[in-house]
Amino acid sequence: MKSFVAFALEGFPLVQAGDDIAMLIVETAGKEGFEIEDGDVIVIAQKVFSKAESRVVRLEEVVASKRAFELAEKTAKDPRFIELVLRETRRILKVSRDILLVEDRRGLVCINAGIDKSNIEGKDCYALLPENPDVSAEKCRVRIGELTGKSVGVVMCDTYSRPFRRGQVNFAIGVAGVGLFRDYRGREDLFGQVLRVKNVAVVDEFAAAAELLMGQAAEARPVIVLRGLRDVVIRYSRQGVDELRISNEEDLFKDVL
Amino acid sequence: MKSFVAFALEGFPLVQAGDDIAMLIVETAGKEGFEIEDGDVIVIAQKVFSKAESRVVRLEEVVASKRAFELAEKTAKDPRFIELVLRETRRILKVSRDILLVEDRRGLVCINAGIDKSNIEGKDCYALLPENPDVSAEKCRVRIGELTGKSVGVVMCDTYSRPFRRGQVNFAIGVAGVGLFRDYRGREDLFGQVLRVKNVAVVDEFAAAAELLMGQAAEARPVIVLRGLRDVVIRYSRQGVDELRISNEEDLFKDVL
Repeated sequence: MKSFVAFALEGFPLVQAGDDIAMLIVETAGKEGFEIEDGDVIVIAQKVFSKAESRVVRLEEVVASKRAFELAEKTAKDPRFIELVLRETRRILKVSRDILLVEDRRGLVCINAGIDKSNIEGKDCYALLPENPDVSAEKCRVRIGELTGKSVGVVMCDTYSRPFRRGQVNFAIGVAGVGLFRDYRGREDLFGQVLRVKNVAVVDEFAAAAELLMGQAAEARPVIVLRGLRDVVIRYSRQGVDELRISNEEDLFKDVL
Repeated sequence: MKSFVAFALEGFPLVQAGDDIAMLIVETAGKEGFEIEDGDVIVIAQKVFSKAESRVVRLEEVVASKRAFELAEKTAKDPRFIELVLRETRRILKVSRDILLVEDRRGLVCINAGIDKSNIEGKDCYALLPENPDVSAEKCRVRIGELTGKSVGVVMCDTYSRPFRRGQVNFAIGVAGVGLFRDYRGREDLFGQVLRVKNVAVVDEFAAAAELLMGQAAEARPVIVLRGLRDVVIRYSRQGVDELRISNEEDLFKDVL
């Protein structure tokens, strides 16, 4: 029977600025007697990268701009938090009491530019997304290859709210060594009919599957290994998460919300 | 190490109107020497239910209404197809050349009311969503219990486009015996900070994980068993997919697209 397994690396340490994430993964796996294999897809929570890459900011070190003060009046947020969001933002989509919804510098549509403080030490500290999640993922992928001799895929993930449906799910926000899509367009179904639209964003499904073990509170399981998905994974792909971006014009949901 | 496994039932037969899906699952598993276990979450493609429940319609049997003809002029669709969509629709959200985007009778925001013809036999035949996917899932869950003595969860899934991100992913559209969310609100993170927002829609993550093995073309693997998620699954839940619906007022993305 076709199957895949998702493993959570137990005992992954709290990450500090400057840490070598790939090394932590390989060491933690080693302590558990777990060996990384060719074709594994390693899904890693964004916070791990943000901490290692010193993307944690103390609010008291932030000076809010005039624009941040103006926007803060429309929200229930600290102007310095708004300032952080603005610095990470390409385009503001919506300002409400609870959130700024933006397209961030990376092209990601997200709440508060993906900045939050969960699982970040220090009352006043917030984690920004990595500068370039694809680059972070690629560095990690290459380094795991150096340390283990294995060829893996790396997916950086974060939980996101989505329109129309309650709750959050895990999305991919950085990717290295795996394809993002399984494209069925032009392929035939069970009855020989050609599929015209179907192009599944499997990289988001990798992230979603991993979240089931990852958890979001004090589980301390930010690294999940997916094994058995060789048929699904396109190796080696140079696609980055930009491929997931859809222009407003192409978005089927344009003008709906 | 914490882990879960996803198994694809191989050799699942083509489903006919009137078929007992639970029986087909148990029989197919039996042929593979695979035993259903307590706590398994069985994710099943919507098409399987639609076929078994005689929700396949031949276009030549459909008489298009005046309204369907009017809308057909704005699209590239057959008026009879539009008529099918209208019958399944509560509210039209958008009409464009390629799609009708609607809130369907079940409250699901979806393209063409979830009607399509992939993996449906007959040039002229289209599958409608089951009348009530939660009821279909619950019947299947109860019947699997009768046949095996095991307590399982059942999730009916379908692939959906989503705003802002390219490609489709699998969503849950019917559910029985499992909770839809893992709610972290009020729980503490690694550093004792209380989480205020996080409420993960794990049922959509079940669907996404299953899709990785399911495929969308001629794979003939519409049934996936997820095993090892007892910590994630709330048993027994009476929640239905209505819980996933978010009102326009509550939707953080309102007025954005």
